[in-house]
Amino acid sequence: MSKKVPHRLYLSEEQMPKQWYNLRADMPNKPEPMLNPATLEPLKEEDLYPIFCEELARQEMDNTTRYIDIPEEIQDFYKMYRPSPLIRAYNLEKTLNTPAKIYYKFEGNNTSGSHKLNSAIAQAYYAKKQGLKGLTTETGAGQWGTALSEACAYYNLDLTVYMVKVSYEQKPFRKTVMETFGAQVIPSPSNTTKVGSEILEKDPNTGGSLGCAISEAVEKAVTTPGYRYVLGSVLNQVLLHQSIIGLESKIALEMLDEYPDIVIGCAGGGSNLGGLIAPFMQDKLTGKASPRIVAVEPVSCPSLTRGRYVYDFCDTGKVTPLAKMYTLGSNFIPSPDHAGGLRYHGMAPIISKLYHDGYLEAVAVEQTKVFEAAVMFAKQETILPAPESAHAIRVAIDEAIKCRETGEAKTILFGLTGTGYFDMTAYNSYLSNTMKTYIPSDEDLERGFSQIPKVDL
Amino acid sequence: MSKKVPHRLYLSEEQMPKQWYNLRADMPNKPEPMLNPATLEPLKEEDLYPIFCEELARQEMDNTTRYIDIPEEIQDFYKMYRPSPLIRAYNLEKTLNTPAKIYYKFEGNNTSGSHKLNSAIAQAYYAKKQGLKGLTTETGAGQWGTALSEACAYYNLDLTVYMVKVSYEQKPFRKTVMETFGAQVIPSPSNTTKVGSEILEKDPNTGGSLGCAISEAVEKAVTTPGYRYVLGSVLNQVLLHQSIIGLESKIALEMLDEYPDIVIGCAGGGSNLGGLIAPFMQDKLTGKASPRIVAVEPVSCPSLTRGRYVYDFCDTGKVTPLAKMYTLGSNFIPSPDHAGGLRYHGMAPIISKLYHDGYLEAVAVEQTKVFEAAVMFAKQETILPAPESAHAIRVAIDEAIKCRETGEAKTILFGLTGTGYFDMTAYNSYLSNTMKTYIPSDEDLERGFSQIPKVDL
Repeated sequence: MSKKVPHRLYLSEEQMPKQWYNLRADMPNKPEPMLNPATLEPLKEEDLYPIFCEELARQEMDNTTRYIDIPEEIQDFYKMYRPSPLIRAYNLEKTLNTPAKIYYKFEGNNTSGSHKLNSAIAQAYYAKKQGLKGLTTETGAGQWGTALSEACAYYNLDLTVYMVKVSYEQKPFRKTVMETFGAQVIPSPSNTTKVGSEILEKDPNTGGSLGCAISEAVEKAVTTPGYRYVLGSVLNQVLLHQSIIGLESKIALEMLDEYPDIVIGCAGGGSNLGGLIAPFMQDKLTGKASPRIVAVEPVSCPSLTRGRYVYDFCDTGKVTPLAKMYTLGSNFIPSPDHAGGLRYHGMAPIISKLYHDGYLEAVAVEQTKVFEAAVMFAKQETILPAPESAHAIRVAIDEAIKCRETGEAKTILFGLTGTGYFDMTAYNSYLSNTMKTYIPSDEDLERGFSQIPKVDL
Repeated sequence: MSKKVPHRLYLSEEQMPKQWYNLRADMPNKPEPMLNPATLEPLKEEDLYPIFCEELARQEMDNTTRYIDIPEEIQDFYKMYRPSPLIRAYNLEKTLNTPAKIYYKFEGNNTSGSHKLNSAIAQAYYAKKQGLKGLTTETGAGQWGTALSEACAYYNLDLTVYMVKVSYEQKPFRKTVMETFGAQVIPSPSNTTKVGSEILEKDPNTGGSLGCAISEAVEKAVTTPGYRYVLGSVLNQVLLHQSIIGLESKIALEMLDEYPDIVIGCAGGGSNLGGLIAPFMQDKLTGKASPRIVAVEPVSCPSLTRGRYVYDFCDTGKVTPLAKMYTLGSNFIPSPDHAGGLRYHGMAPIISKLYHDGYLEAVAVEQTKVFEAAVMFAKQETILPAPESAHAIRVAIDEAIKCRETGEAKTILFGLTGTGYFDMTAYNSYLSNTMKTYIPSDEDLERGFSQIPKVDL
């Protein structure tokens, strides 16, 4: 029998986690090491110092320390917008007429509009501590760029954001938000880097891509004294910082005498998913519990469900280290018809390994079904979800409907990563019935796979 | 000595107010009654039934009931997005190097992005309870329209929103948010009403105005069976519903053994201000405490600081009842140079009366100073404020700076009514130094005053 459950549960500041949880410590098979793109040798911590600041390089390589203290300065920043609420979706349950209990962890209550701030502030903090002058990064939809702008404003660090040119032009308001926080936002490809200039020379009218923006941001960082590069997803360090999502969720559920039968997260690069599932996956890895853990990706960019588990580059420009991950090939770019976020070609190595080893399931969903779920959710729960988050909503609704059919009162937890205020073009396309679903053909995928480097380890 | 203060304080559901507080009950001089525009006689409750639903008409006229129960259904809806946090602005205090303690009540954590939902859900509830089919309203910037769309979606009520045409064209995303919640959004003036058609005939290229949109929404409501009109500010009923803001704030401050020396709210129509100050004004009216209470308005639309306390229409089309209020004349429209919200020509009768009787102060601020405060606040507190809210931030900062100079550790409370995600055009104008400050000349004001009807009571 569970306790009386409030609509929204907030932990007190005393209850907030003071350590991040490093899922790798409990993985029987660790994620594969990254490779130096020149030598194809496994990278050492020091190899990362020109790109990442030292503490973050250390965290990136640390497969064994189970809990890592959250520095007090970061805890103080977290307290400005955290804890995020764990919300019981009473109205959605009622509308679905389901015996299931649906909970969601809502990470959108900050100006970045998403969970990205959890890692942005950590990365900015370590950069400041190392005495760096500034950071570079890339952004696509703009949530990560916004989060990092907020973090850099707080620590008075310079920030250069390479924003995919097509987004830069389509989302001028996102750009202004970043500029409000003092960031310099450059449409990518640009003439501020060698790699950008080369791409522009070949194709002056290109709209750019996330992979190209990564290449530019990395080049800018390694060629500017006192600068380093930071990334908002995929990396082990990012999943570490995002574990705050799952840790808070678990404490809140324990207060309610609840434990999830199913944990559902959307999966682009894997940052939210890896954070949300961390402590529940720990229980699964250590035999304490056996929740179903479900990654949801778009059918348009199906890295887990149709990708290959191989070494690949993290960027289109092929300047980054290689990571062993589920990938569609670093040149794979989903059709412009796909508006629903989660457009990255690969998947975090931690998530990839766990999926490969059978600890989590993956589901791919069509975007019109995703927006259908988003609109239903908005009407019932008063939150307008980001299209990315709505992937998880879709599967949570599907699972709740199954419960209605079987009569099972399962406890469902999903991650609501953010809000959709800057995605109204996509909503409009859905509402006006002009949204298309794009499913890559086997040939499309083969073209992507053919670009993957052949690496034997 | 005050208790250890968390960054964000959330009440538990048990602590949330179960009654609204009706400030009029404690006012020694009640606000003047509204007048029938045809007869200039004071309106009776029944006179309002064709426009408002009956329970709301009752609340509008009730000057004596001190506490009014919040129906359980509304309490349940409030629990989906409330309590809103009371936040201690530690970082802002540190940046300002002030001994003052700054608290703010943040109402932006819902999809409408503002406090407007507090009254929208109440008005939709009573309409549903009366068996109505739908509602009409107007919206300018779009926060009220969004809030009411959410509320009507929840109760499955039809909703027609007349959106000022210039906003409709400049803010297509706001429109899409409302449509996502199922509302019909019509640019005003339109050919769907008589008053709209007449205005269009005279000036086919007009961008519309809030006053015109009100006229259309009222006409549509009274000519459509099963429909009523609702308004998001100015009215007594709206201030009643918004008292939840002040009541929650007071309970939270009491938990911290705090009481504000100064309470600051931005003032457009007066809905947020009236709600925030309600229980503190009660203390002042009943002699229990004597906080300073400050209304902040833009110099571009200075209804309190330069307006007249007379009977005037609530709309440009002069179809509404007359209210005794501080007004600039119902034809006064601030210059398009003014981007910072709070563009209404009048002020809620309750606020007007209290100001007239000396219970509150008013300050007018320039919009570049407002945006300067907004950007500083965003960088320090991680929330991007709405331009409206930033008026209160400006004065809170000014008061905190005064404390630095005098060494006084005053407790300051201000209302952060909402977020600025849909106001990036204005932020961009500020950041690019193209924002102008508009101060109406005495002649400009005289033009507005000359349109005010001569009413002797």
